[in-house]
Amino acid sequence: MKIDVANAACEVAVPGGFEYAGVTCGIKKSGKLDLALIHAPSGCRAAGVYTTNLVHAASIDWDRERTPSEAVRGVVINSGNANACTGQRGESDNRTMAELAAQVLGCEPDQVLVLSTGVIGQHLPIDRVKTGIHSAADSLEPQRGSFLNSAAAICTTDAFVKIASREIAVDGRTFRIAGMAKGAGMIGPRMATMLGVLTTDFPIDATSLDRLLRDSVEKTFNCISVDGHMSTNDAVLALSSGPSAPVSDHDRKVFAESFGDVCEELARMIPIDGEGATHLIEIRVRGCDSNAQADCIARSVAASPLVKTAMTGNDPNWGRIVSAAGYAGVPFDPSRVQLALNGHPVFSKGQPLEFDAAMVSRSLGSNLRIEVELTVGDGPGAAVHWTSDLTVEYVRFNSEYTT
Amino acid sequence: MKIDVANAACEVAVPGGFEYAGVTCGIKKSGKLDLALIHAPSGCRAAGVYTTNLVHAASIDWDRERTPSEAVRGVVINSGNANACTGQRGESDNRTMAELAAQVLGCEPDQVLVLSTGVIGQHLPIDRVKTGIHSAADSLEPQRGSFLNSAAAICTTDAFVKIASREIAVDGRTFRIAGMAKGAGMIGPRMATMLGVLTTDFPIDATSLDRLLRDSVEKTFNCISVDGHMSTNDAVLALSSGPSAPVSDHDRKVFAESFGDVCEELARMIPIDGEGATHLIEIRVRGCDSNAQADCIARSVAASPLVKTAMTGNDPNWGRIVSAAGYAGVPFDPSRVQLALNGHPVFSKGQPLEFDAAMVSRSLGSNLRIEVELTVGDGPGAAVHWTSDLTVEYVRFNSEYTT
Repeated sequence: MKIDVANAACEVAVPGGFEYAGVTCGIKKSGKLDLALIHAPSGCRAAGVYTTNLVHAASIDWDRERTPSEAVRGVVINSGNANACTGQRGESDNRTMAELAAQVLGCEPDQVLVLSTGVIGQHLPIDRVKTGIHSAADSLEPQRGSFLNSAAAICTTDAFVKIASREIAVDGRTFRIAGMAKGAGMIGPRMATMLGVLTTDFPIDATSLDRLLRDSVEKTFNCISVDGHMSTNDAVLALSSGPSAPVSDHDRKVFAESFGDVCEELARMIPIDGEGATHLIEIRVRGCDSNAQADCIARSVAASPLVKTAMTGNDPNWGRIVSAAGYAGVPFDPSRVQLALNGHPVFSKGQPLEFDAAMVSRSLGSNLRIEVELTVGDGPGAAVHWTSDLTVEYVRFNSEYTT
Repeated sequence: MKIDVANAACEVAVPGGFEYAGVTCGIKKSGKLDLALIHAPSGCRAAGVYTTNLVHAASIDWDRERTPSEAVRGVVINSGNANACTGQRGESDNRTMAELAAQVLGCEPDQVLVLSTGVIGQHLPIDRVKTGIHSAADSLEPQRGSFLNSAAAICTTDAFVKIASREIAVDGRTFRIAGMAKGAGMIGPRMATMLGVLTTDFPIDATSLDRLLRDSVEKTFNCISVDGHMSTNDAVLALSSGPSAPVSDHDRKVFAESFGDVCEELARMIPIDGEGATHLIEIRVRGCDSNAQADCIARSVAASPLVKTAMTGNDPNWGRIVSAAGYAGVPFDPSRVQLALNGHPVFSKGQPLEFDAAMVSRSLGSNLRIEVELTVGDGPGAAVHWTSDLTVEYVRFNSEYTT
C-alpha cells in the first residue's frame, strides 16, 4: 500500500537527551541499513513490553531481565537476522552485542538493551555486527536525520519507515515524544508484535513509564495483525531522558495521551504496510458487556482469511464477518447484531438488509481504509482492531522468502 | 490439487437399508447438482456433531434438537445456499424443507434431518427446493450411482466428490459403512467443519452411535483446517439402518475402527481439496504431556499463514514452524525441540542443524503430502493435524466469491 510518509518524516520532533545512528554493516544481503544505535549520554529511564512466545530470541530474555530500569544508556538493534532459535551461541552473540555497544558508549553491558529482527534460525555474523557498532558510534547525532537513519535501520520487509512524534507544551515547557517501529509480516495481535522504540524527554520514572507503556500497547500494538503469527522477537521499548523531576497529574495526563497517540499512529502503520496489503481494515466492535469481549470479537474478525480476502476483492460478503464474530467465544444474541461497511448498513437484527452491493463494493474499492462496524448489543464494551487485507502478493512474497 | 478419485468411487460399498438421490433444482446458478435426499425406508438410528459457532444456520438448531434419535427416516440437504443469518424466514424455510421431505417420504417432519451449505445471508429459493425434493423422491435408489449423486449434490466449491467406505465381516456377516463429505473453504478445526454424512447397516443404538461419532470426529474432522474460519453450517451425521441387535464387544470394536478410518479418509480429503491448495501438510506433534497439549501445538502450526505459504514455496523455512509452536500456549522447553520435514532433521535441541536446503526443498516440491514432525519432549502426548497450504489461487478465488 502506498502512502506518503515524506511529510511525517519531515516533521518529526526529536526529544533532547538522545543520539541516534543507523548504518550498514552487511547483515542484509541487500546492502541496506541494518544496524541502529540509540544513545542517552546522561542515561534514561527504560521500560519494555515483549513477545509472549515461548520460542523467543536471546535479546528478549536480555531486555526483560533489565527493564524497567532507571539507568539505561543505550539500545543496539540489528535487522536482517532475528538471532532466534540459535541456542547458546545465540545467547553469547547477544551478550557480545551488548558488550560491544557498552564499550563504544562507555557504560556497562547491563545498561544496554538489545533488539534483533529478521530471519529465524541463522547465526549472527558477529564480526559484521562489531564493525557496525563501531561505525554507528562514530555517526551518533541528536538530529532528525540520524533519527530517521536509525528508524530505517530497524526495518526488514517494510515498504516505508514508520515514525511518529508529538510535541507537548505544559507549564511553559516543551517536551517531545518520537517513536519508530518496524513490521509488515509475522504480525499477530498478542503482545507487542514488531519492534518499536519510543524516546521522550518528558520526566517520568521507570515504573510509571512501564505502566504507561503497558496500557498504551494493550490498546494499540496489541490490536493489530497482518497474519496472526506471533514473532519470536517482538518488543516495544520506551526511553525517557527527562530528569526525574516532579510533574503535575495534569501534565502527566497530557503526556500519557500524546504517548498513546504516538503508539496508535505507529501501530496503524504496520497493517497499512502489511506485506502485499491493499487495504487497512479497521474493525470497530461495540455493545459488548466488556471491552475484553469486544476485543475477542474484533480479534476473531481480524484473523479470518475469508474476511481479509473479501476485502481484497472489495466484496461486501458480510456473512464472513458475522460468522467470524460467532466463533470468537463471546456470548451474544445473533438476532441483535448490526453490521455496517464503510457506513452502509448490510445486516440488522439477525436479518440481511437490502443494499446496493455494487455501490458498497465501489466504496470499499475507492478507500484504502475500510471501516467495519459491528454492534452486538447495547453493553458499554468496545474495541478497535486494525488489520491488513490478504492478497495474492502476500502469498507470493511469503512463499519466496528464505530459500 | 489433483487426485484420482475414480477408483475410490468405483469401490464404494453402500450399506443396506438406505436409498439416495442427488438432483438439480436451480439453487446453484451453475446448474450443478444441488439437492440430496437420503431415505431409510425402515428407519435408522442417527447421531450428529455440529458447529459450535454462535452464529449458525436454522438447520443446525433443527438437527441438534432431534439427535441422537432412534427413529430418523431421512436427511434432506441443499447446497448453494447456507440459509444462515436469514432470521425468522430462515427458520421457517428450514421447517418447510423438513415438512416437504417428510411428505414425500411418508413420515413426520421430526423424523427428517436438514443440512444446508453455501453462501451465507441469502434467503433460500424455497419453490426450487420444493421442486427438488419431489424430483429427488422420484429418483431415490439404493445403488452406488445414487449414493454418488447425493455425494455430488452436497458439494459447493469442492474440486472433487469426497466419499469413503469400508466393508467389515464379523461372525460371518458383512456390514458396510459409506460416508460422504463436502468442504474446501471456511474450514476451521473446532467442531465438525464441513458437512459429512456416514451411513451404515451395522446394528448400533443411537446413544452408542453418538459416542462413537464424537470420539471419531475429535480425532479426524476436528483436526483439519484450510483457513481456520469456522462455518455457520458445519455438521457430521451418522445413520445406522442396522436393527438394534446385540453385537459382541469385539464386533463393535472392529466396527468402531473402520468407522474411524472412514472419518479420517474423508477428513483428509478436505484439506487435499483446500481451495487453491497444492500440498496437504500433515503435522505430527509428539512428546507432550498430554494429547490435548499436542493438539494445541499442531493446531497453532496448522493455522499459521507463514507456515502455509512457506510450504507453498517448498521452502524449508522451519523457524516459522517452531515459532508457531511457541505461541500455542503450551509449556515446553525450546532447548529440547526437534523438527524434521519429510524425514529430514532441520532443528534439534534448540539449535539449527546444517542441512541441504535445496535437497529438502526438492523433497517438499515433489510430494503432494508434506510431513512435519515436531517433537517437543519425551511425554506420551501426541496429535496429528492436516491442513492445506496457502496459495495465490486461494486468495484469487476468495476475493472473487459472491459479488
